[in-house]
Amino acid sequence: MIKTVAIQGVRGSFHHIVTQQFFDNPVDSIECMTFDSVVDSLITQESDAGVMALENSIAGSIIPNYALIDKNELHIVGEHYLDIQHNLMALKGQSIEDIKEVYSHPMALLQCKQFFRKHPHIKLVEDKDTAEVAERIQEKQLIGIGAIASVAAAEIFELDILAESIQTIKHNETRFVIVKRKNSVVPENEINKASVKFEANHKRGSLAAILNVMSDCRLSLTKIQSLPIIETPWKYAFFVDVTFDNYEDFKKAKALIEIMSDAFKVLGEYKNAKL
Amino acid sequence: MIKTVAIQGVRGSFHHIVTQQFFDNPVDSIECMTFDSVVDSLITQESDAGVMALENSIAGSIIPNYALIDKNELHIVGEHYLDIQHNLMALKGQSIEDIKEVYSHPMALLQCKQFFRKHPHIKLVEDKDTAEVAERIQEKQLIGIGAIASVAAAEIFELDILAESIQTIKHNETRFVIVKRKNSVVPENEINKASVKFEANHKRGSLAAILNVMSDCRLSLTKIQSLPIIETPWKYAFFVDVTFDNYEDFKKAKALIEIMSDAFKVLGEYKNAKL
Repeated sequence: MIKTVAIQGVRGSFHHIVTQQFFDNPVDSIECMTFDSVVDSLITQESDAGVMALENSIAGSIIPNYALIDKNELHIVGEHYLDIQHNLMALKGQSIEDIKEVYSHPMALLQCKQFFRKHPHIKLVEDKDTAEVAERIQEKQLIGIGAIASVAAAEIFELDILAESIQTIKHNETRFVIVKRKNSVVPENEINKASVKFEANHKRGSLAAILNVMSDCRLSLTKIQSLPIIETPWKYAFFVDVTFDNYEDFKKAKALIEIMSDAFKVLGEYKNAKL
Repeated sequence: MIKTVAIQGVRGSFHHIVTQQFFDNPVDSIECMTFDSVVDSLITQESDAGVMALENSIAGSIIPNYALIDKNELHIVGEHYLDIQHNLMALKGQSIEDIKEVYSHPMALLQCKQFFRKHPHIKLVEDKDTAEVAERIQEKQLIGIGAIASVAAAEIFELDILAESIQTIKHNETRFVIVKRKNSVVPENEINKASVKFEANHKRGSLAAILNVMSDCRLSLTKIQSLPIIETPWKYAFFVDVTFDNYEDFKKAKALIEIMSDAFKVLGEYKNAKL
């Protein structure tokens, strides 16, 4: 059973909210300030699992996290979708005009860019985590400083919300994955989604041939993303997510794609969290 | 002939360097502080063309710029690749220990994250443009403030480079596109690359069928990116780049994909800038 989970951020962060919603049993969170530390915590066996944001409606795929999973031979064992609502918060008794600087995670700043264009007097400063700024504002009683974070963070650290749901895209869904060390397996009868990576040539038809096999094996594609392989011109890595009804179908597809592509790798086999 | 070009940033910015390398004739740059203003400048006919970064080795696709091109019915008429080298710069006579805050564009901050982890005393602040910070440091004689920008910016604004090539990935290639208003056309005999967008169903095989047509029509795929359509579950938008030898082949593929997919759109037909 998973007992300790490494998350990016502190209590009240979106990764923390994911651990609370995803796991059936209560888990301890190991608070990490970077995704690299999440991975370290897993590798050194300090934690049983880690949570990582993988894509969202504004920025698309978070490519560096794909690379972390791939490079460190982690295994995706689950996914979770969260509708992320960003709120501007500060010490009680202040108005938005009193706020000089707002600190938050770069992704949160990006997602709220449009809101801050209407408040050009506010300086936006990159920070490690959304909720950790909220914690710091309360702890150090920082006047004139704002955080962008969840309602949960405002409650935990007793801050006033000055503006609600300030992200540009109101329905701002982020997909998180739960990762474990290599060789972690989900029971076959629970698996109906997989993330794979393979390399294929620029040569016309190479990708189409692989997608044909997927389709012949009754897999549905829910995501595809090509990335140029920097050292090898005209060769591409593809990250593909597929869903299926029958694990045997996916097994067959795996065997075929392994032969047809280079560097085929299963990044995870897990349960589809979308209805 | 293109005479005025809207760029994101000021003289010495990477977009400015692109205009200097891409156009054969000298062009005037219209300095814009956001990509939205680049688009506005084009639409109001203040400028003849615009330059926009579209993807890079670290962050992958810059999805918001795809959306801007799509939404505003712009047309991609060319592409340019730039190997982006970031440098830390400040007023002369200072060392890296003297620097308290570094201001730059979020993408530059992201690309140099690893370097600044070794200098935790420096606060990273988001700004609108890389070179504009260099300009401001010189103009206002800002002590203790650093910029991350090109060598050209350091030269133009007479700053000292404190650290060279500080980006995490040393060969940091960014792809820029040159956009014009709708109905701008490149002569057919110069076209050997195109960017298209279409929507297809989650239904198995829909994407494979379209890629088969592309392959049958002798198109090679150089990029593919799926994006979920937020309002329509299980429907995806695909952004695909293809190269070809013969424009007639692409014309045939267009006619077929138009029938097979929904909302098919050519975002641009232009000359491939990769050897």
